[in-house]
Amino acid sequence: MSIQVVKVKEDLLIENNKKAEELRAFLLQKGIYFINVMASPGSGKTTLLTNVINRLKTQFNIGVLEADIDGDLDAHRISNNTGVRAIQVHTSGACHLTAQMVEDALKAFDLNGLDLIFLENVGNLVCPAEFDTGSNINMMLLSVPEGHDKPLKYPLMFQVSKVAVITKIDTAEIFDFDFDKAEEYIHRRNPEAKVFKVSAKEDKGVEELTQYLVSLIKSK
Amino acid sequence: MSIQVVKVKEDLLIENNKKAEELRAFLLQKGIYFINVMASPGSGKTTLLTNVINRLKTQFNIGVLEADIDGDLDAHRISNNTGVRAIQVHTSGACHLTAQMVEDALKAFDLNGLDLIFLENVGNLVCPAEFDTGSNINMMLLSVPEGHDKPLKYPLMFQVSKVAVITKIDTAEIFDFDFDKAEEYIHRRNPEAKVFKVSAKEDKGVEELTQYLVSLIKSK
Repeated sequence: MSIQVVKVKEDLLIENNKKAEELRAFLLQKGIYFINVMASPGSGKTTLLTNVINRLKTQFNIGVLEADIDGDLDAHRISNNTGVRAIQVHTSGACHLTAQMVEDALKAFDLNGLDLIFLENVGNLVCPAEFDTGSNINMMLLSVPEGHDKPLKYPLMFQVSKVAVITKIDTAEIFDFDFDKAEEYIHRRNPEAKVFKVSAKEDKGVEELTQYLVSLIKSK
Repeated sequence: MSIQVVKVKEDLLIENNKKAEELRAFLLQKGIYFINVMASPGSGKTTLLTNVINRLKTQFNIGVLEADIDGDLDAHRISNNTGVRAIQVHTSGACHLTAQMVEDALKAFDLNGLDLIFLENVGNLVCPAEFDTGSNINMMLLSVPEGHDKPLKYPLMFQVSKVAVITKIDTAEIFDFDFDKAEEYIHRRNPEAKVFKVSAKEDKGVEELTQYLVSLIKSK
């Protein structure tokens, strides 16, 4: 990549960070907590979110943004299985959401009635990590079938995520997944990361994760 | 995204396409066939490549480019398990390889001695699909744990890939993977796509895929 291109990207990121700070301040003032969920395609984001939202929806008024390049499967899955309002956001081919895209999408909600927003970002371990969405925390998912070496290959994603959730733990034996190594590699990227292990299918670990999220939301 | 940003990206893609055409012509003249392998993180690219290369290495002189944001695990895995030369390429944070990056990386090989190059692109279903690497064909992998709905969400990746390999088919029951739907969705994006189903672990389907690749290489 030429220096010119890098410079354009830097400008983009600076502009995005500014917009993200504004959005975060605006949502704080409205009393809304915002969680950005990131992971590879097919790592179980929608399934986990559905499970977590069903545990949280009696305590909080929740809105969900579902970002994808194309399709609206996930917004339907979330609405149908939780009853909360979910908006599908298309990125016009882009591999991530910017803070501006989030701000635009939030116009679909009555923000006065919301306590909590989840954004399910585009399935991707690279670009979404670079763009601050205006969220209060980043939560990333690493699914067992992907392998425990991913923090070595996708450093930024693990570095920017306060919460790392290892999903599909029921399949660990099939895939020779080493949990100790996964945790070690995650903490090499971010020593402060809180690691959870869940199986949404067998309903393991989701309550523990949910309680941790509640503690974060309440301390906002 | 503002119009300015989109314009910069268009210029980038035009420049990349030009470089890719040049590289393709150059490799053709050298008698080298070039296969670009793309997929999500953890979909089994390195495992499948190792298996395929071990079947091809008596017929062809092979070189492998392993692209990652960070780490050099995959280049070591390929070299150690096949004996062919593998070069690790770091993308400085970028989510894809450009044709220029490929051209630069190929300097590590003696091209006069090569018949076949595999590029294992960065694990990502979005950006790598946008950048022509100068390859003769794109081969994409969709692993069963990711789910059969991925062609609906990541259209371009499936559109640009002549070969779509469904991997980890031994786990289909655990993940309720619907092969008919997967094929239907893949062909919705690219009616000409050749679909293979493999389990590198159980050594199923790899020989069939390999024979198809041989037929492509020989018809170059």
